[in-house]
Amino acid sequence: MNESLKRLEREITAEGMDALLVTDPKHVYYLTGFASNPHERFLGLLLERGEEPVLIVPALDAESARAASSVQTIVTHTDTDNPYKLLSCQLKGKPGKLGIEKEQMSLARFELLSEEVPAAGFSDIGPMLRKMRAIKSPAEIDRMVHAAELVEEVLRQGLTRVKEGVSEIELVAELDYLMKKLGASGPSFDTMVLSGPNTALPHGVPGSRKIAPGDLVMFDLGVFANSYASDITRTIAFGEEPGAELKTIYETVLAANEAGIAAAKAGASYGSVDQAARAVIEEAGYGEYFVHRVGHGLGMDTHEYPSLHGLNEDIMEAGNVFTVEPGIYVPGLGGVRIEDDILVTETGARTLTSFPKGWTVLG
Amino acid sequence: MNESLKRLEREITAEGMDALLVTDPKHVYYLTGFASNPHERFLGLLLERGEEPVLIVPALDAESARAASSVQTIVTHTDTDNPYKLLSCQLKGKPGKLGIEKEQMSLARFELLSEEVPAAGFSDIGPMLRKMRAIKSPAEIDRMVHAAELVEEVLRQGLTRVKEGVSEIELVAELDYLMKKLGASGPSFDTMVLSGPNTALPHGVPGSRKIAPGDLVMFDLGVFANSYASDITRTIAFGEEPGAELKTIYETVLAANEAGIAAAKAGASYGSVDQAARAVIEEAGYGEYFVHRVGHGLGMDTHEYPSLHGLNEDIMEAGNVFTVEPGIYVPGLGGVRIEDDILVTETGARTLTSFPKGWTVLG
Repeated sequence: MNESLKRLEREITAEGMDALLVTDPKHVYYLTGFASNPHERFLGLLLERGEEPVLIVPALDAESARAASSVQTIVTHTDTDNPYKLLSCQLKGKPGKLGIEKEQMSLARFELLSEEVPAAGFSDIGPMLRKMRAIKSPAEIDRMVHAAELVEEVLRQGLTRVKEGVSEIELVAELDYLMKKLGASGPSFDTMVLSGPNTALPHGVPGSRKIAPGDLVMFDLGVFANSYASDITRTIAFGEEPGAELKTIYETVLAANEAGIAAAKAGASYGSVDQAARAVIEEAGYGEYFVHRVGHGLGMDTHEYPSLHGLNEDIMEAGNVFTVEPGIYVPGLGGVRIEDDILVTETGARTLTSFPKGWTVLG
Repeated sequence: MNESLKRLEREITAEGMDALLVTDPKHVYYLTGFASNPHERFLGLLLERGEEPVLIVPALDAESARAASSVQTIVTHTDTDNPYKLLSCQLKGKPGKLGIEKEQMSLARFELLSEEVPAAGFSDIGPMLRKMRAIKSPAEIDRMVHAAELVEEVLRQGLTRVKEGVSEIELVAELDYLMKKLGASGPSFDTMVLSGPNTALPHGVPGSRKIAPGDLVMFDLGVFANSYASDITRTIAFGEEPGAELKTIYETVLAANEAGIAAAKAGASYGSVDQAARAVIEEAGYGEYFVHRVGHGLGMDTHEYPSLHGLNEDIMEAGNVFTVEPGIYVPGLGGVRIEDDILVTETGARTLTSFPKGWTVLG
């Protein structure tokens, strides 16, 4: 059994469970190394206390599961088998208390499961898995570094396409094209390019507005590569200086971004990162225009545990990866957001994104 | 109440249900016209026999729901409310037998729901909604025509990018770029470009193989536009004639595609479309190389009910939209697939895709 499975077995023992069944394909990948999309077919990893884990896969995935999975015992089912019955037969002891992913499992599947596996009770293992995933292994960190490097190359090449008259949506198409061309699986969320007054909309949707001299242009983009996400925001000026206040706002957001990153270290609270960034913006008098949390966990999902809001008193641990992305959005004037991905270490934080973030007037 | 809601009310009455709760955002859109992504927040449409329907939405979506929804009674909830309690208070009668979407609802949500709404039983309304959706309204057909036109323009422009030495993956990036540039929301599935011997892989993944003279090149792509999907496949030759057998295969697949389309009409079985196309390919001696069903339903999902396999004895109805996409895949040699989207009418079928499908040698 690999380290994550051993850790999971200790956790279920501590929680008084007898066995668990992991059915989210992402979590099966996380725990076994076997990535697949079973579509409507059943995929499950069964871990019973004191027993070797068992992976149950559709027969047509048997070969790739054997090649990729660290779990050795693989049971296959065809479209005419009842996979829940097979699962039940794999249980060495009584079903007892069974851990499942209650947010991932549909009611339809649960009805099929509980018919075949008369467990004494079903507990939710979702929170346990979420917390495990929040601490990245060295191999995961390598992948996240790669995803960050990729998106930065996309941004670098994308910025050369910024010209007077090109529209937000055309730049989005260019960036998405570059992602695939450079080898990413795809964007990790809808790529965002906003310009001029549209930058004041923290959740604006790119449209046909054309870039003009004096605009701020905000780029928020990320890629998936090897199943891991990156996420970066940079805001630049185009053509000419857009006016003193926007530059002041920029310098304030940059100082907030740096203060947030400086506050990150193992042992401090997640909330302290938000507080440190927010203090800078409040001091500059823009507090009411920073209308969202400072960041979110990043990994196999673009938004995952933990949430970096000011009231989060949970404690950072080495291996956490999250975004630090303060912003100021002044309606009618414009907005700035600067976002980096950071890795928490024992003594501070390492930034995974290193794209220059000094004030830049392009073109 | 609009027509679909009235129809749904008749259906639940016939099935002995007292009320139903629709929670899939796609189905809420289908039934009310209100499109949204509530993320982890609760969204639900409650329809009780003999009562006006009620839409329950997150408070921050209240304004857009009021603007878009045909359902007039809108109840909002904030992040501190228990939306299931609000739902329970909206019920005029006893909960009785409640219809829900068992494949869409997570067990976690069902536990919250059943705690607040002590229904006498829960039935699955998924199959009922699937069947309703299989008959498209005139407004839906307009959208599907638009999605088909869009993808055909993407393909037309994309074909001008086919040159010696360009790779499959570069063509995929070009096509995806064109989709966004021409106004689609995005691809309706992973765009596929395969070339040369790779065309023999019905589920091949585009890679770095470069197009060379004498190749067959297969394009399988679709877009989402206004929430509806299109899906088209064309296979062309590049640079020079690729040999007599591949041309024979092409003409066979084309005849099969046309035979499948000709078999479609209200009153015949779905299976007859597969059988008609398959008969052409079997007669030509390539039966063993047509390894998949002839098509699938198309609409708000790229693959939806019905499944066009040879054993499907369910009866076609006017308003059904599905793909007809026979193929022949000869390992080591190459493959051809030709796919159209068609609308079933009382007397036959109307093709929504009209891209030329005669044998073409490009360049």
